[in-house]
Amino acid sequence: MDSLDRRAPMGWNSWDCYGPGLTEEQLLANAAVLRDRLAPAGYEYVVCDIQWSEPGAKSKAYRPFAPLCTDGFGRLMPAPGRFPSAKDGAGFRPLADRIHAMGLKFGIHIMRGIPRQAVEKDLPVHGTGLTARSCADPSFICPWNPDMYSLREGAPMRAYYDSVFRLYASWDVDFIKMDDVCVLEGRVDRSGVPGYGAADVEAVAAAIKNCGRPMVLSLSPGPARLENAWHMSRYADMWRLTGDFWDTWEQLLDMFDVTRRWDAFSGEGFPDCDMLPLGVLDVNEPENGGGGRGTRFTPAEQRTMMALWCSFGSPLFVGAELTKSDPAVFDLLTDPLLLDMHRYGARSREVSREGGIITRETGDIRGGKFVCRFNVTDAPAASGGETIPAHGAVVKHEG
Amino acid sequence: MDSLDRRAPMGWNSWDCYGPGLTEEQLLANAAVLRDRLAPAGYEYVVCDIQWSEPGAKSKAYRPFAPLCTDGFGRLMPAPGRFPSAKDGAGFRPLADRIHAMGLKFGIHIMRGIPRQAVEKDLPVHGTGLTARSCADPSFICPWNPDMYSLREGAPMRAYYDSVFRLYASWDVDFIKMDDVCVLEGRVDRSGVPGYGAADVEAVAAAIKNCGRPMVLSLSPGPARLENAWHMSRYADMWRLTGDFWDTWEQLLDMFDVTRRWDAFSGEGFPDCDMLPLGVLDVNEPENGGGGRGTRFTPAEQRTMMALWCSFGSPLFVGAELTKSDPAVFDLLTDPLLLDMHRYGARSREVSREGGIITRETGDIRGGKFVCRFNVTDAPAASGGETIPAHGAVVKHEG
Amino acid sequence: MDSLDRRAPMGWNSWDCYGPGLTEEQLLANAAVLRDRLAPAGYEYVVCDIQWSEPGAKSKAYRPFAPLCTDGFGRLMPAPGRFPSAKDGAGFRPLADRIHAMGLKFGIHIMRGIPRQAVEKDLPVHGTGLTARSCADPSFICPWNPDMYSLREGAPMRAYYDSVFRLYASWDVDFIKMDDVCVLEGRVDRSGVPGYGAADVEAVAAAIKNCGRPMVLSLSPGPARLENAWHMSRYADMWRLTGDFWDTWEQLLDMFDVTRRWDAFSGEGFPDCDMLPLGVLDVNEPENGGGGRGTRFTPAEQRTMMALWCSFGSPLFVGAELTKSDPAVFDLLTDPLLLDMHRYGARSREVSREGGIITRETGDIRGGKFVCRFNVTDAPAASGGETIPAHGAVVKHEG
Amino acid sequence: MDSLDRRAPMGWNSWDCYGPGLTEEQLLANAAVLRDRLAPAGYEYVVCDIQWSEPGAKSKAYRPFAPLCTDGFGRLMPAPGRFPSAKDGAGFRPLADRIHAMGLKFGIHIMRGIPRQAVEKDLPVHGTGLTARSCADPSFICPWNPDMYSLREGAPMRAYYDSVFRLYASWDVDFIKMDDVCVLEGRVDRSGVPGYGAADVEAVAAAIKNCGRPMVLSLSPGPARLENAWHMSRYADMWRLTGDFWDTWEQLLDMFDVTRRWDAFSGEGFPDCDMLPLGVLDVNEPENGGGGRGTRFTPAEQRTMMALWCSFGSPLFVGAELTKSDPAVFDLLTDPLLLDMHRYGARSREVSREGGIITRETGDIRGGKFVCRFNVTDAPAASGGETIPAHGAVVKHEG
Repeated sequence: MDSLDRRAPMGWNSWDCYGPGLTEEQLLANAAVLRDRLAPAGYEYVVCDIQWSEPGAKSKAYRPFAPLCTDGFGRLMPAPGRFPSAKDGAGFRPLADRIHAMGLKFGIHIMRGIPRQAVEKDLPVHGTGLTARSCADPSFICPWNPDMYSLREGAPMRAYYDSVFRLYASWDVDFIKMDDVCVLEGRVDRSGVPGYGAADVEAVAAAIKNCGRPMVLSLSPGPARLENAWHMSRYADMWRLTGDFWDTWEQLLDMFDVTRRWDAFSGEGFPDCDMLPLGVLDVNEPENGGGGRGTRFTPAEQRTMMALWCSFGSPLFVGAELTKSDPAVFDLLTDPLLLDMHRYGARSREVSREGGIITRETGDIRGGKFVCRFNVTDAPAASGGETIPAHGAVVKHEG
Repeated sequence: MDSLDRRAPMGWNSWDCYGPGLTEEQLLANAAVLRDRLAPAGYEYVVCDIQWSEPGAKSKAYRPFAPLCTDGFGRLMPAPGRFPSAKDGAGFRPLADRIHAMGLKFGIHIMRGIPRQAVEKDLPVHGTGLTARSCADPSFICPWNPDMYSLREGAPMRAYYDSVFRLYASWDVDFIKMDDVCVLEGRVDRSGVPGYGAADVEAVAAAIKNCGRPMVLSLSPGPARLENAWHMSRYADMWRLTGDFWDTWEQLLDMFDVTRRWDAFSGEGFPDCDMLPLGVLDVNEPENGGGGRGTRFTPAEQRTMMALWCSFGSPLFVGAELTKSDPAVFDLLTDPLLLDMHRYGARSREVSREGGIITRETGDIRGGKFVCRFNVTDAPAASGGETIPAHGAVVKHEG
Repeated sequence: MDSLDRRAPMGWNSWDCYGPGLTEEQLLANAAVLRDRLAPAGYEYVVCDIQWSEPGAKSKAYRPFAPLCTDGFGRLMPAPGRFPSAKDGAGFRPLADRIHAMGLKFGIHIMRGIPRQAVEKDLPVHGTGLTARSCADPSFICPWNPDMYSLREGAPMRAYYDSVFRLYASWDVDFIKMDDVCVLEGRVDRSGVPGYGAADVEAVAAAIKNCGRPMVLSLSPGPARLENAWHMSRYADMWRLTGDFWDTWEQLLDMFDVTRRWDAFSGEGFPDCDMLPLGVLDVNEPENGGGGRGTRFTPAEQRTMMALWCSFGSPLFVGAELTKSDPAVFDLLTDPLLLDMHRYGARSREVSREGGIITRETGDIRGGKFVCRFNVTDAPAASGGETIPAHGAVVKHEG
Repeated sequence: MDSLDRRAPMGWNSWDCYGPGLTEEQLLANAAVLRDRLAPAGYEYVVCDIQWSEPGAKSKAYRPFAPLCTDGFGRLMPAPGRFPSAKDGAGFRPLADRIHAMGLKFGIHIMRGIPRQAVEKDLPVHGTGLTARSCADPSFICPWNPDMYSLREGAPMRAYYDSVFRLYASWDVDFIKMDDVCVLEGRVDRSGVPGYGAADVEAVAAAIKNCGRPMVLSLSPGPARLENAWHMSRYADMWRLTGDFWDTWEQLLDMFDVTRRWDAFSGEGFPDCDMLPLGVLDVNEPENGGGGRGTRFTPAEQRTMMALWCSFGSPLFVGAELTKSDPAVFDLLTDPLLLDMHRYGARSREVSREGGIITRETGDIRGGKFVCRFNVTDAPAASGGETIPAHGAVVKHEG
């Protein structure tokens, strides 16, 4: 479990900077920077987040009932207006090819369920005698995104997910961010714990196995429940511990409590603290006039975040618009000590909270350990013979 | 408040005997018996329950995504295969005319919301510049019936309900059973209490006022919450206190607790104990082979139910298939003492529970009071000098 | 039910001005003012609130394990240092005699349960062969006051309460404020609803009946639950709808929601909005230096409170230190229109909320109705041709 | 973490066979058998469970308000009538000496809090200027045992626990079973998670450190909450995962779900599946006439239990009356393969549930792994080429 290939996934995700309105051109521009500046340090996944099949998607306000692009089997297809290489039914394969040619890997977002539009049209399910209506469960939906119906557990669910992953495998997808699955209020699933899409996760895990191409399976959004951790670690690779993480100190401070509760699972797959909201963000939100906005985190807070993620062993997915972000972002993301802790760390634990200083220790599988001390007070604080800035961190390798 | 015209509504409802599969022929046959046998005692409403727009509806298992009949404005229309007089867009007007000609009143069932099929087709909303999509809220649905989306609160909701009630007024409808509204798990409404469709109820109450025709507004299903009683009594005429009531002693016994909690509201509109599952029931359920089944209640239990409903002042809606039910059913439903209690009763209260005997008293606005003693034990019991059979009732008028 | 003797109880209670530290001298001084200034308008009860058996009680911070005065049967006795007339085991009888001589009635506070000190000493229970230990339930206590154990349901509970009320009857007590009973988190009682002391209420109601002297039974503290209203209205005279009510606009505003939910019960015994925090308050709290403090309510808010209480038909218990309060307090408390509404009102209901104006109507059993319009906005508002001040009320008699 | 000295604690506990009524003679007789038959296999702790200070304790029905033995500082002392060697204030030291002389270790049970009797008498707290009353929190108690008050967080709590552990250290105690601490309904503690006695656990952990003698700290009763696991693993050695475990298949079956949720914590201290109810049990329960009763588990179920506990790495505490139990019990408790799995196991996980067979794998730190297959159906089942009896287990060591 502590071998090198257990390093948590690293890469870039489009949500924090582009929201639902990402275009192919933007994704490729960011991928190019990732290749040049971050790939040498281990960042490799380029993930296209939600709503890539919605032709008019722009800001984070979804457009209910907007027509989505699907193939004849009800499977969502990239909107060619935003992803020109997907035209003529090519899907994401041409884009994946370009990402692969950069030496990177390609990931996409999916929602739990089957598109309502496929159900309305009662489209056939690829490779089966079933149609969309017979697979859909019309009585349970996602409350925050209007695109999908749930799937009926059992054969219909498996059939639909298999049909979808056959398509994704043909696109050479490497990473799946599966959404609307960690918290399902109001549903009692087979996991025996209310509020988790266990059946969907099992069916998607099986579909990945069946499709013949390895893919990382990432579950969203949190807060995942500890009671379900055994299931997520058995069937998925990473899962979100909180709701969407943004650049506020309150959320960052709360993440110390969250990681403390989850420390024991940091060797069981990869509990996920969410994307790193650094650099330039929210480019597509109207209030930012097209230029985005800078992270609200201070430099000290940014380093604290990066140190906590690396100490805990969280996946590292950059949220920054990379073409517009300044060198300090890249310096932080490639900090050798922090990335060594992320790569060689094992059995990370919070060891104390005292006088506003939170101390975490992470074993180094090469020997010794990493010690992080975080000052969570609003003023500089002395600790271990040095001064830690407000909201800041000191990381050391010891013995 | 205690005047004669405050008698709770009385009539017949199709659900207990025909479920979703009722036909016009069946409704008229039952109405004829109601006219002949029960109307003299005060029963007057003939209510067509759920799924009248679904051409293939039969048993209580709804058929998800089955095409519903609507007009060009997304308003549900009776399925002409089941209601022949509704053909050529006539709607329920011809049937209502026939019911009215019998000296009776006509009621229909509606679901909260707007048909998903109207939204999928984005049909125009009658009398407005809006379309169905702009009125629908795709993020909240009924979990047990797949037909409707919720409406967006405010102008869109009001516009759609107004359009619907203009149609119902043109049909001369007298009674509306509004479903999926008393308990909405997961929704926090403007009522400030989770789990109740306050906005929809207000909009429907306004639509009834706007449409120019008085209609009784009945809310379903329960269990309604006491915290919302003030709102229901302000905007509706009757509302269900429990989930669907069927012919089991456990449910009947529980109704004593329910009515005790709600006694104070029995003068505030009409808290509703649900239909009376007497006589022949469940005609359309496959396991009954087309002939239905008799009520599971013993004669003593039937009388206990009728006495409790009348004591409490609940609406009285017969669930029996009237053409097939035997004379004892009609005798019970027209029992003069019980109906006097129902008609002239005021301020009914449970006064004691002792030794398995529950006693309720109901003031008689003409003078004196009605006293009901119920034996809720499983054996005959002596009380007040007489023997009450197991699960049975004794009702007296005193001084 | 609408007859004159159904007027809700009115009087003075020591809590808001003296907390647990009240003395006999203070009580008598206030009673004298009550007699002179408020009794003609109907105020009659003088109620000594909590901790009268604690010799050193002063502010609202209770003193855990402070020795309480009891008789040899474990019944709490007034602390003679604070209530000199109680010396030599006379109890409250001499004080009650003086109150009665003023033409007023005398009330005391009790806690649910049996004093822990009686249990520790295993004192005999008066009039029985039982001792305190055999009556106590050591596994459930009041979380906010350390004086009592619970009583074991059944014969032990009845025996102890009977012993206590024999004593109170011998003191000529007229009114019992029973505390720690409306909300009992963690206890499931025979009422079938968690969190209410039904068994204790029934036993106290029986003890009052058994003791031969009528006493008003008032239950505290709230928030009482609507599910238990039937029980409280059957066994008690009044019960608190909220936690302790103090002089903040937030609490007053909230009371409109509370009364709206409870309107239907306003003819079923007396749901209680709590004492009126007017005039001089909190005399014994250290931060007020012995002189108390004035109410934080503006004159408009005071009138709004008084109008809401009178409209709803709440008991009216003045919280003011009467010897120090200025004439405006007495004018408000004896406002003829408001007190007529309180006295002759029936079936009070909130009828609308619109544009920041809440309207309530209260029938006048002599004819016509009272209409109250409350401006709950933070600015003056025009309504019905006049201007209502911010947080203010207009009350009219109509028709 | 995977070194040999990380083996979970093993021993014998008096609760399952003697309940609260254990005597010194019985404890020594069982210890002698433990020494002879089980100590060679690693069992070493002899733990005296609850109520050892209650002179008249017998069956599991506690006697409220029964006088407990304490010293002059309010610290509970063994009742000399049951533990003769404790006479003259010797406490448990003589008994501990005899246990140590057998080559075994000695453990005792404590309740969270301070004896109510010490508070009633306001005894001084040893080694401080405080008295019991100033340390007690009278507002929160254990609902199932009447002996203790809670302690006030901070200095009073620390002072009292320090005084107690000074005494225990002088007795040479090796093991503390701390009760009423994992689940505290109604209390929000500093852990930030309701329902857990974090402050008490920290104070006891510090008191053990301060007293100068190492002691194993075991927390009871469960169900512990996963949210608090980080805290329990930081401050305690073992903690209970469920309520009291007894010999029913339902509880054993449920333990598979429990261990699955807790697997990730099996290397973080010792999550505890509770005592093993084998052999002769419940000797002191009246219904067993003094002779106790045999376990209700079938031989197959006993082996399943033992295999699950060993696979998961739970502490192993025998509940049997050892002098009366037959050889099969000792054979099972000393099964070499199972104890090797318990001793050398690491990273145990459930890997599948299929067709009624639950499979768990436990790494062997010497190489290879242990594989357990459990048949949780009610009939024999074929699995891996062999037949597993109903409710039975097959354990293998693989490559």
